[in-house]
Amino acid sequence: MIFDVLTLFPETVSNSCNFSIIKRAVTDGFITVNTINPRDYTKDKHKKVDDTPYGGGAGMLLSCQPYLDALNSIEKSENSKTIIMSPKGKIFNQQMAKEFSQQEQIIIICGHYEGFDERIMELSNAEEISIGDFVLTGGEFPALCIIDSVTRLIKGVLGDDESCEFDSHYDGLLEHPHYTKPRNYMGLEVPEILLSGNHEKIKEWRRLQQFIITKKKRPDLFEKFINSELCDYDKKLIEKNSQLF
Amino acid sequence: MIFDVLTLFPETVSNSCNFSIIKRAVTDGFITVNTINPRDYTKDKHKKVDDTPYGGGAGMLLSCQPYLDALNSIEKSENSKTIIMSPKGKIFNQQMAKEFSQQEQIIIICGHYEGFDERIMELSNAEEISIGDFVLTGGEFPALCIIDSVTRLIKGVLGDDESCEFDSHYDGLLEHPHYTKPRNYMGLEVPEILLSGNHEKIKEWRRLQQFIITKKKRPDLFEKFINSELCDYDKKLIEKNSQLF
Repeated sequence: MIFDVLTLFPETVSNSCNFSIIKRAVTDGFITVNTINPRDYTKDKHKKVDDTPYGGGAGMLLSCQPYLDALNSIEKSENSKTIIMSPKGKIFNQQMAKEFSQQEQIIIICGHYEGFDERIMELSNAEEISIGDFVLTGGEFPALCIIDSVTRLIKGVLGDDESCEFDSHYDGLLEHPHYTKPRNYMGLEVPEILLSGNHEKIKEWRRLQQFIITKKKRPDLFEKFINSELCDYDKKLIEKNSQLF
Repeated sequence: MIFDVLTLFPETVSNSCNFSIIKRAVTDGFITVNTINPRDYTKDKHKKVDDTPYGGGAGMLLSCQPYLDALNSIEKSENSKTIIMSPKGKIFNQQMAKEFSQQEQIIIICGHYEGFDERIMELSNAEEISIGDFVLTGGEFPALCIIDSVTRLIKGVLGDDESCEFDSHYDGLLEHPHYTKPRNYMGLEVPEILLSGNHEKIKEWRRLQQFIITKKKRPDLFEKFINSELCDYDKKLIEKNSQLF
């Protein structure tokens, strides 16, 4: 998978890819993260990439020419997707991360300052994506979130012992609670069941905790889950504990 | 404002704070970003910070002792808030960014690997916060998103010419489209109205665009907006264009 990131701050993106799972995925050849700086493509003699807005108002806007020329300089593979980080975009989620992980190439356009000239959206044919309902200075951190979440889902990136199957959001539910040593910390005990060695019971307890926690913390997700096609195991478990739901 | 970030990857956080608005806010004394590495607090002789989960399963869990001792080492100001980045948390949004920007100190606990021992949540009294419904390797990128979005809202950080008043989500709506030079790019023209010089009309067009775009792209946000207490200006504008809504 190739990630091509258009950014005015290429070092921020490269440095941030230099740790943990992303770094390992680069080293092991699963992903390549390239950065392209629109400033290198501007035809403005002062190397400007932005200008004042038509109609007045605060801030500077990113201009069409440097961004679109930088975008056009990228060699596109057949299975390529272009996204533009924007607070107006579709909200990124785990389902999109799964879809993105099937691509050969993802081109991510990062804005900065007040935003883009609207025509960049029209001419780039990029899908506008937002990571949430909050405002950031630029698209760099959101781009890194997307690179990280997508990379984890590429086959082979996570070792067997790092399986993502039980992650929150993997099947639309939040995770069950986890406990590690010591058994008692500051008076708080690990739940008895986890020490029982009864794997069937532990599996059931954990799945039930997922239902309970999701229902409590994210009723929207639980509603969606309960109305989806449930497997027999989940169906029986919910029936058995129907007083809870 | 002091941000204290508990992370196993302090350099990733510090390097990423070394650009753009965050860097300037640090230089100008509006914010301080400290990093605290739980590994420096572990009492394990091999410097371990994680261990296998009780009850079996994939991955390693972050242990109570190094995280809670690292947390307790931080000097807390009176107006301090502790959050823990977690996919199970409350979804971060602009309203929370505004509230956070009133704090003197925000302590952000970043996880990594499979997650935390549940008792860290109980004993730290931290509020669980998520930036969205997707899974990341660690809390570092989400923490940076929060630092960025909160810093922008601290009085004095943005100059007059960078006002955040018209940002998406500032008042619950998405932004209107922006255009900068040239007037015609690849056949696409800047909307006539923005060249008219009629500031009243431009203001009205932009506000109307905000309504239209939000209704189209984020009906959930528009619904919330239209049911809130509207100012006279917005009320009249919507009445005048009632066929659109």
